[in-house]
Amino acid sequence: MHTHEVIGTHPDVKGSTNDALIRCIDACYDCAQTCISCADACLAEDAVADLRQCIRLNLDCADICAATAAVATRRTGSNEELIRRMLDVCMMACSQCADECRHHAEHHEHCRICAEACAGCRDACQDALRSMAH
Amino acid sequence: MHTHEVIGTHPDVKGSTNDALIRCIDACYDCAQTCISCADACLAEDAVADLRQCIRLNLDCADICAATAAVATRRTGSNEELIRRMLDVCMMACSQCADECRHHAEHHEHCRICAEACAGCRDACQDALRSMAH
Amino acid sequence: MHTHEVIGTHPDVKGSTNDALIRCIDACYDCAQTCISCADACLAEDAVADLRQCIRLNLDCADICAATAAVATRRTGSNEELIRRMLDVCMMACSQCADECRHHAEHHEHCRICAEACAGCRDACQDALRSMAH
Amino acid sequence: MHTHEVIGTHPDVKGSTNDALIRCIDACYDCAQTCISCADACLAEDAVADLRQCIRLNLDCADICAATAAVATRRTGSNEELIRRMLDVCMMACSQCADECRHHAEHHEHCRICAEACAGCRDACQDALRSMAH
Repeated sequence: MHTHEVIGTHPDVKGSTNDALIRCIDACYDCAQTCISCADACLAEDAVADLRQCIRLNLDCADICAATAAVATRRTGSNEELIRRMLDVCMMACSQCADECRHHAEHHEHCRICAEACAGCRDACQDALRSMAH
Repeated sequence: MHTHEVIGTHPDVKGSTNDALIRCIDACYDCAQTCISCADACLAEDAVADLRQCIRLNLDCADICAATAAVATRRTGSNEELIRRMLDVCMMACSQCADECRHHAEHHEHCRICAEACAGCRDACQDALRSMAH
Repeated sequence: MHTHEVIGTHPDVKGSTNDALIRCIDACYDCAQTCISCADACLAEDAVADLRQCIRLNLDCADICAATAAVATRRTGSNEELIRRMLDVCMMACSQCADECRHHAEHHEHCRICAEACAGCRDACQDALRSMAH
Repeated sequence: MHTHEVIGTHPDVKGSTNDALIRCIDACYDCAQTCISCADACLAEDAVADLRQCIRLNLDCADICAATAAVATRRTGSNEELIRRMLDVCMMACSQCADECRHHAEHHEHCRICAEACAGCRDACQDALRSMAH
């Protein structure tokens, strides 16, 4: 990812990047991809009927992570409150998806990996939130 | 939009639809489209330099409305809290964008229309939130 | 939708709108919503294992329709070729999804409605393509 | 990114991954992020009026890359043709955006970086296309 490099050249940033927020943006894209992939892998399992809720949370989490990444990338002074709120919702989506995936982790490797990506993204959102505290 | 018709046939819904939520989904798609369009029209204005913040809020609002519409469409018992949180963030994004667009409404018709769409979406989110109160 | 009204006020459009393209934008949002809803309804069916391919095509179609709507809304002289190519891919995604949904239409009302929305979007893309012919 | 790891555990893939396609998925997310960032940095430049077309192509490219990444992640036997078409459109969006950004690269570092990310994504799409040839 070019995230750190490109944000560092933004006229309003001028090299003084918020590295916790940048790590969070990368984690959001990673989590979005992993969730879309886990949903598709769940659909291919014999036990798909047991994975309905997992697939739904995967898809919710993917959509919310993608929107969070975009809003956080477009960080501007005046909408910090909006970014904080998105980070907060994203933490919840990642937590819910990580919990659900963890239940299936023993039987499905993709759920184990997805739980890991979701937990990583939740933590990255939390760190970013702290870095933007009032 | 087929929103009401298709959601009404969901096995978990069986005709007992939440009409406030359905109106909100339609308003989110409408607002996303209007915001993308307003951003592009702002870019084409001679006064583009005065419309920077408007364009950013347009793009944030469009991304958040699209994600909210998707999550609200995938409504399932277990993630009502997540939907409520998204509706809440979406209300804020719409409010911010409506306020900013209103400042430019006198000079730019697209901003006037966009302020109207954003205010409508904010109200639809609020009604949907009330309909999903604990 | 405010699509026609807001695009009509774009400085580069000045009232001379391409109505076939505007109908196509609306159809893309409608189709995206219907596909997300159909995928979630399919997940809730007892026969979910028979609906795997339907769910995947629903999700592909929803993502492609949303991107097409955004690109078509940001129509500018210099990227007409890109819009045409997106309309073309969108037609294919809608066709594939309409065909698959039609197979399940007898047993699942949401698939019948989704096939209708997808076919409508495919036709709207085709009309828009013709309106933008070289 | 967990892309390679998670796709490798998909029941239909079972470790025999298409590595060119996986690199392409990662490149699409990287390019989407860089384009959103470049658009926002362009908006913040004094010379924003000269960067209108760059911002539009950035936004088109970001939307198309995100949709391509999702569709390519949900790769399934039956929609290979759809993936190929999306990769093809994505190549064009990346090419157009790389060309435009290159014009501004001397004056704006974010445009130089974005041109690099777009060119990388275009090449990754081309490699993926070749790997999926009939």
